[in-house]
Amino acid sequence: MGTATEETAGLVSDVTATLVESVQAYLGSILDQRDFPANLAEAMRYSLLGAGKRLRPILVIQSCQAVGGKVSEAMPAAAAIEMIHCFSLIHDDLPAMDDDDLRRGQPTNHLRFSEAQAILAGDGLLTLAFEIMATEVQPPEVAAACCAELASAAGVVGMVAGQVADLEAEKSGVASLEQLEAIHRRKTGRLLCAALSLGARIADADTETCEALDNYGKCVGLAFQIADDLLDITGDRHKMGKGVRKDADHGKLTYPSLWGEPQSRQKARQLIEEACHSIELLGERGRRLEALAHFVLQRDH
Amino acid sequence: MGTATEETAGLVSDVTATLVESVQAYLGSILDQRDFPANLAEAMRYSLLGAGKRLRPILVIQSCQAVGGKVSEAMPAAAAIEMIHCFSLIHDDLPAMDDDDLRRGQPTNHLRFSEAQAILAGDGLLTLAFEIMATEVQPPEVAAACCAELASAAGVVGMVAGQVADLEAEKSGVASLEQLEAIHRRKTGRLLCAALSLGARIADADTETCEALDNYGKCVGLAFQIADDLLDITGDRHKMGKGVRKDADHGKLTYPSLWGEPQSRQKARQLIEEACHSIELLGERGRRLEALAHFVLQRDH
Repeated sequence: MGTATEETAGLVSDVTATLVESVQAYLGSILDQRDFPANLAEAMRYSLLGAGKRLRPILVIQSCQAVGGKVSEAMPAAAAIEMIHCFSLIHDDLPAMDDDDLRRGQPTNHLRFSEAQAILAGDGLLTLAFEIMATEVQPPEVAAACCAELASAAGVVGMVAGQVADLEAEKSGVASLEQLEAIHRRKTGRLLCAALSLGARIADADTETCEALDNYGKCVGLAFQIADDLLDITGDRHKMGKGVRKDADHGKLTYPSLWGEPQSRQKARQLIEEACHSIELLGERGRRLEALAHFVLQRDH
Repeated sequence: MGTATEETAGLVSDVTATLVESVQAYLGSILDQRDFPANLAEAMRYSLLGAGKRLRPILVIQSCQAVGGKVSEAMPAAAAIEMIHCFSLIHDDLPAMDDDDLRRGQPTNHLRFSEAQAILAGDGLLTLAFEIMATEVQPPEVAAACCAELASAAGVVGMVAGQVADLEAEKSGVASLEQLEAIHRRKTGRLLCAALSLGARIADADTETCEALDNYGKCVGLAFQIADDLLDITGDRHKMGKGVRKDADHGKLTYPSLWGEPQSRQKARQLIEEACHSIELLGERGRRLEALAHFVLQRDH
């Protein structure tokens, strides 16, 4: 299995690669410190510590740093959001949902273990995310605000709702751009925005900065989805670590199917420009977030 | 479908029946206030607002009241814990888990809707519980402590771990009383204790009172499980609203199979006495918790 570090190193910068390593170590230490059933631990570890870009935790940390906060202050929220992301991947891959067999180049959790273990590993990661957020983020009133933010982004008006809408669209088809954007905004956009917002909250950002980071998050989130759709057509199964052309072959509405490939690329580039423009008020401190935005566009997996 | 109120009214007292109605109304209002996909809302509503004893929310409220707090202060935590309980029932009933077809007298969530909807309804309730706890419990530092308590009781060292151990025991068999108690302590005991602890935290109880309520919770939790095992043998399928003799017919280790029926009843009575003894320091304010403890023993469903 490729490590998270191998996946990201060189793509953004050495600074980011070091952060990915720190996130990885922190996630591992959380699992090590807790005394829970061995097979549950194994299933959680398999998905949480396997290959992954760690985009959401990096966004939490770099958002916090961009507002003057420290990596260590952002780390618990960074870990929590990665757990939420990982829970969603495990449950989305289940036979009753998207029924996927490959994730990040490895058999999906329910194939490697069992359906029951995969459901429980997902439930466990979702719960653990809130435990870490509530106990490790300081001060406690910021922890409560971060729990609320994460729950809202992950839950019934956010990511869970997005998966419901996505499953429905599988059956009845997506009719319009508005519907497509509404799905993605909830399924991936809200959690990416939450990553930025969590980092900003922890560093005690002012309202103007929070709004700037939120707009950056919205633009990057949509660009990320367009890039994902493009990778589904042009990507390499080996690099992607999952099946390609799944969407295209299923006749699913995607940005390239709606706009064509060149216009989709252009739209994604525009969004990244807008994202970078949004955070100009951060000055030099915003440079890493700018680089990260460009990475979203250039990634090949 | 019998309402929660019909189920509980008269069994404890009019006071409790009124509380159950308030909890029911509060849970309904949470679902009404949020704009989420219609079929997700329907699946969540079906399980959350259907018949149920509402034991955990009542414990939160009466624990809070016993320490001098108000019903309104305890209500968000009461709702959150019922959502967590409900999430666990939906996921435990899934085909990949216990594969149950009847719950509270109605088809289980995945039979009434679909497996995908049931998984997502469970995920949605789990997430919503933390959202309500983090935003509605006051002050925020108590909200953070309550989120941590709930996550720990529900998660990888609590309820989720209990379900993992229970599924394992289904395969390999439970060998000893210690193993049986370890499963129940995590699967049901931790969440019942958390209910007491949440109420106490919200009412700002001192350490001695918290410990007394914790011991009450441990005793009531174990008595509850013994009563459940007894109901599996002697219960009425109609009143129970789920299959009976499931455990007995599967040769599962239960308290009655280990100790016999009379001794199990005696042990449960002793535990209830110990529970009531634990909270003597609360004086008159503890009377409702005493009555609730006795109800656990006398319930017929």
